[in-house]
Amino acid sequence: MFENKEKTSISKLGEFGLIDHLTKEFSTTNSSTELGIGDDAAILQHKDGKQLISTDMFIENIHFDLVYSPLMHIGYKAVVSSISDIYAMNGHAQQLLVSIAISSKYSLEAIEEIYAGIRAACEKYKLDLIGGDTSSSVTGLVISVTAIGSAQDKAITTRSGAKEGDLVCVTGDLGGAYIGLQILEREKQVFLEQKNMQPDLSGKDYVIGRQLRPEARKDVIDSFSEHKIIPTSMIDVSDGLASELFHLCKHSNIGVKIYEDKIPIDQQTYDTALEFNLDPTLCAMNGGDDYELLFTITQKDYDKIKNSQDITVIGYCTAPHESKTLITKSGNSVEIEAQGWQHANANAENPKDNS
Amino acid sequence: MFENKEKTSISKLGEFGLIDHLTKEFSTTNSSTELGIGDDAAILQHKDGKQLISTDMFIENIHFDLVYSPLMHIGYKAVVSSISDIYAMNGHAQQLLVSIAISSKYSLEAIEEIYAGIRAACEKYKLDLIGGDTSSSVTGLVISVTAIGSAQDKAITTRSGAKEGDLVCVTGDLGGAYIGLQILEREKQVFLEQKNMQPDLSGKDYVIGRQLRPEARKDVIDSFSEHKIIPTSMIDVSDGLASELFHLCKHSNIGVKIYEDKIPIDQQTYDTALEFNLDPTLCAMNGGDDYELLFTITQKDYDKIKNSQDITVIGYCTAPHESKTLITKSGNSVEIEAQGWQHANANAENPKDNS
Repeated sequence: MFENKEKTSISKLGEFGLIDHLTKEFSTTNSSTELGIGDDAAILQHKDGKQLISTDMFIENIHFDLVYSPLMHIGYKAVVSSISDIYAMNGHAQQLLVSIAISSKYSLEAIEEIYAGIRAACEKYKLDLIGGDTSSSVTGLVISVTAIGSAQDKAITTRSGAKEGDLVCVTGDLGGAYIGLQILEREKQVFLEQKNMQPDLSGKDYVIGRQLRPEARKDVIDSFSEHKIIPTSMIDVSDGLASELFHLCKHSNIGVKIYEDKIPIDQQTYDTALEFNLDPTLCAMNGGDDYELLFTITQKDYDKIKNSQDITVIGYCTAPHESKTLITKSGNSVEIEAQGWQHANANAENPKDNS
Repeated sequence: MFENKEKTSISKLGEFGLIDHLTKEFSTTNSSTELGIGDDAAILQHKDGKQLISTDMFIENIHFDLVYSPLMHIGYKAVVSSISDIYAMNGHAQQLLVSIAISSKYSLEAIEEIYAGIRAACEKYKLDLIGGDTSSSVTGLVISVTAIGSAQDKAITTRSGAKEGDLVCVTGDLGGAYIGLQILEREKQVFLEQKNMQPDLSGKDYVIGRQLRPEARKDVIDSFSEHKIIPTSMIDVSDGLASELFHLCKHSNIGVKIYEDKIPIDQQTYDTALEFNLDPTLCAMNGGDDYELLFTITQKDYDKIKNSQDITVIGYCTAPHESKTLITKSGNSVEIEAQGWQHANANAENPKDNS
């Protein structure tokens, strides 16, 4: 009998297993490499401080849909999403490398639009575009961004420093980008069925903006520096609150208790979720693309953040064996599940984005 | 009358114009940014020396063809091609970030093969894999690699330091990767027409190896350091000798005189080119993917390289107004044209790769 060696489907590895699995046999040998794969960004050690580096890839019909995403916004969002990883280490983003693969169906003017968005982000966040590659693509548009930043030795915040008793905080509000995506997808379907229909986006500016043109929380990192706050752990919310909580708990070896009524959800997000018969809390827990920061601080730092309009305390860290619990509005305790988040049109069979 | 605004085709910008055009309005503001876009790698300044960073993207059916490229070799070649840019600045490659977009048709075992190739390259070149992203792709395989290296301040070699009278040198031999590609493409056609035919690759190991599993010239950079040679300018030969000569001449504001009979071409490359009715010299001039180094040195450094088996002097630098001249084997002077190089299956309408 011949051996019939079975192939393993990528989806079997689960959401975050793929990159861990693929890189587990790699070791590091260079003395400047302080931290490799596994956090928001890698850390290199230099005499003048630590350097942070992160890379992300953006693929047409996975991360964005050209039917409703303006090219300029696609460029802007690709940058924001990448530098968000640098801020999530409590660092300052400074340089970018951007590679674009594009098919010949695009005109020069179309690529210029993408770069106009990249430039707008560079200007807003004070980034230098220092490298890149342009290539043909026989199919869709691909943008790959590498972001570089710096931080002083003591300021760096990884996913792994949270301790029992620390407060769990989140910036801004959550779930908006996911709700914005629902509206855009609905209007796309209407448009595909009746080409002469104009999309009905009235009164949905905030959530659509959250999806199409998010911002990274440089302002919060600057304010940490100003108020001498160093979070004990931090991650950016790109895949939904639940998924990011799982990362913090795993890396810090803690549990968390989160209060549903504390999770910040914008009124427009809330109302629109109900229109779609969606639970607003689930949108915040499992929707992605918000690019807010999830972090933990020691209780003694509470006074420094309690008056911030940008920061909400949503719970606290517990012992690892207490697991990850959501206290619902009705007072019940439910186990938090990391359902994860498929970008835009990614089909369920495809592997999970790892950013 | 309505204005009919015409769109510009990307191909109109020519080979190397696209990235220059797209990035011309970007400025740099961070003090650590010493050199941005325009050379093989960007340069960042740190207290402990200079850091080199370069990024490249590899796209299925543009840079590689899965019909004849083993997945392990694709991973290996993607790394080699990226670190070649760091060596081309006379630097030492140290870290890598690799992002991969892949469709669900690939099994885990297939991705593991790609990573086995990446790991083999990391081990050979002593590189640390420090970051990456995995994403779904609705179409082909995409690999994006960012390479990071370092160099002492005085060792860095850009494209812009060549002076009149300097010697033009090249490592290894040229045109082999292009000839290897011709064989692989021929056998692919045979295979597509008659599925039960085995490919005839006998006696073509060298050129096929040059195409599928090239090496970067770390050994030459190490030997520069050992013999205290600092080239006056350097670039890696990824797009063919002619194209790289154009870059050196443009950035250094020089002309060159190149002797056809000095251009190093391996015997197997030469013989196979003739079988294909191709001019071996044109294969060296306009074929790509060799990943050798093209560099210039002052005449006083000639003694240091004259006995090297790896280095051939192919000509010298002239005044800018003397342009770029090839002295043929029959003694004629012909103007060198940068015909450029389309990777693998890239169709002629697609934009030019910029690596």
